[in-house]
Amino acid sequence: MRYLLILSFFIFCSCSDKTKNLDANDVQSNQENSTSTETMDYALVIHGGAGTILKKNMTDELEENYLMALEYALKTGEEVLKAGGTSIEAVQKTINTMEDSPLFNAGKGAVFNHNGENEMDASIMSGRDLMAGAVGGVSTIRNPIDAAIKVMTDSDHVMLTGAGAELFAREQGLEIVDPQYFFTENRWNSLQRILKKDIGSVEELKNYKYGTVGAVALDKNGNITAGTSTGGMTNKKWNRIGDSPIIGAGTYANNNTCGVSCTGHGEFFIRYAVAHDISALVEYKNMSVQEAGAFVINDKLAKAKGDGGAIILDKYGNVAMPFNSAGMYRGYIKSDGSKEVKIYKN
Amino acid sequence: MRYLLILSFFIFCSCSDKTKNLDANDVQSNQENSTSTETMDYALVIHGGAGTILKKNMTDELEENYLMALEYALKTGEEVLKAGGTSIEAVQKTINTMEDSPLFNAGKGAVFNHNGENEMDASIMSGRDLMAGAVGGVSTIRNPIDAAIKVMTDSDHVMLTGAGAELFAREQGLEIVDPQYFFTENRWNSLQRILKKDIGSVEELKNYKYGTVGAVALDKNGNITAGTSTGGMTNKKWNRIGDSPIIGAGTYANNNTCGVSCTGHGEFFIRYAVAHDISALVEYKNMSVQEAGAFVINDKLAKAKGDGGAIILDKYGNVAMPFNSAGMYRGYIKSDGSKEVKIYKN
Repeated sequence: MRYLLILSFFIFCSCSDKTKNLDANDVQSNQENSTSTETMDYALVIHGGAGTILKKNMTDELEENYLMALEYALKTGEEVLKAGGTSIEAVQKTINTMEDSPLFNAGKGAVFNHNGENEMDASIMSGRDLMAGAVGGVSTIRNPIDAAIKVMTDSDHVMLTGAGAELFAREQGLEIVDPQYFFTENRWNSLQRILKKDIGSVEELKNYKYGTVGAVALDKNGNITAGTSTGGMTNKKWNRIGDSPIIGAGTYANNNTCGVSCTGHGEFFIRYAVAHDISALVEYKNMSVQEAGAFVINDKLAKAKGDGGAIILDKYGNVAMPFNSAGMYRGYIKSDGSKEVKIYKN
Repeated sequence: MRYLLILSFFIFCSCSDKTKNLDANDVQSNQENSTSTETMDYALVIHGGAGTILKKNMTDELEENYLMALEYALKTGEEVLKAGGTSIEAVQKTINTMEDSPLFNAGKGAVFNHNGENEMDASIMSGRDLMAGAVGGVSTIRNPIDAAIKVMTDSDHVMLTGAGAELFAREQGLEIVDPQYFFTENRWNSLQRILKKDIGSVEELKNYKYGTVGAVALDKNGNITAGTSTGGMTNKKWNRIGDSPIIGAGTYANNNTCGVSCTGHGEFFIRYAVAHDISALVEYKNMSVQEAGAFVINDKLAKAKGDGGAIILDKYGNVAMPFNSAGMYRGYIKSDGSKEVKIYKN
């Protein structure tokens, strides 16, 4: 405990130096590990969305289900990495497990838009060559992250949207499902409550509205990949696109800096170019991933009242999971055996 | 001439210091002025697209038409700024003139996609409060930049796409036109030539494929706004979205750093988060707009073979117009009476 306190103080001082307005609380969520410059064999960090996630609103059973789903996602990705698979494949398989679970706002569990439809976004970026792919506003692709990967690997483009993105996915042989596949009673009821303005508080509304899944992996070849997938915002209108499919906002990766996947109130993450800003701070200010994450999420975004968080991973396997909301479903696993799965702040 | 050489040398040395790999050629396009820290009353910089624009391929009449259109755009925006209008209004009115001209790939002159339709993108960002708006893949809004502004000022969102964005624009009372309005014989013939693979060379193809318009303004209140509007890439498929509507890629603005609008091969501008990267270099490396523009456009992007350019303006009225292609339609005007309108490299 004494070492943890000393470490906290060290991180606090080091952050304060560069980012004057952080306080100890801000840094508390960034103690995933101390900064290392020794290369890790592999590492994987995930999130399942940030929001007003409080223990008092959670049943033991639901909490257990979330923890199990996060564990399963980490285990799935780790198997790929341990076997020498690429970070792209690890991110894909990890996100697939969360897209296929009704618990997270992505794929199967995607929220409903104003018209009662599911409109999903996803993106991927490879830090090895800065290649990237994204799809926005798709309704029939079972695993949107797979479509984002195909855009990256099999098209000349970075971002495809709507019916065009679905046609491309079909041409690429991806699994196309009836939109009915994405119906879940829980999400449907959330939309109905919002439409009837039957929501207790702004905080409760936020919890209903946001949610995303994401993963960042470092493979044995030292390559970092970041990916994000989401159903967007409950009750969204006008084919709104959030930060998740925007390279630089919801997702960014560069082997020389870090990989980032974000979750939260997407409009703020676009306006602050959050994922790229974190990478830029590592590149231009020589910040650690903990410092960069704390500055952008807990200082810049918190001041702007932009709720959310991010997961960050560098080439040494250093992990940060900063968030300024009540909770964030999150976890990491590394080749040195260290591992963590968490939901709430502490 | 001697002073110009001395100035060139000074800028070159100063750039080389921070960005080791620049050469004299790279810096040549960034001599719009020396860096000043005295505030300008107002300033406006525009582009009408970058590409393989060579004098040998241009008739005198067409060249004259382009120069006149650029002059008219600058004059229109300057009138707004001189009268004390906001930089948002100046960017809007300036871009409107280019959207209404058949010469530029935006609005009226938008290129055709693979299906023979016009699919336009636009975005705006206000450096005062980091508010932003964008539309992607719209086909019936006469002036897409107006829709981007409405998204910023009259919705909770940053980015709307396709039919949803068009519905929103209609609800906001913007001018909706029959898609036929965007038909121009010249652009139609370009698509037909590409479809028939009747293009002489890769360079000629590049010239056909890209094009954008953009403006960055500084108003008398010291507020910077950046905006971009485009028809995208000729023959694009699958509802492809380029960098123009992506905040952080094609457009970024922050009063404390600079405003940026980009043009070129959009996929590269997304992957390199070009507009935000330029802003980040000003913020974190204390670079001038000339240095930041030269580093990102003439070094990073040029090495990656990402063709294009950017216009950049800071709160002191310092202007940079870097590009790594053969030419870029561009110009600026300032309250001190200085002005420039150019097409080719020298």
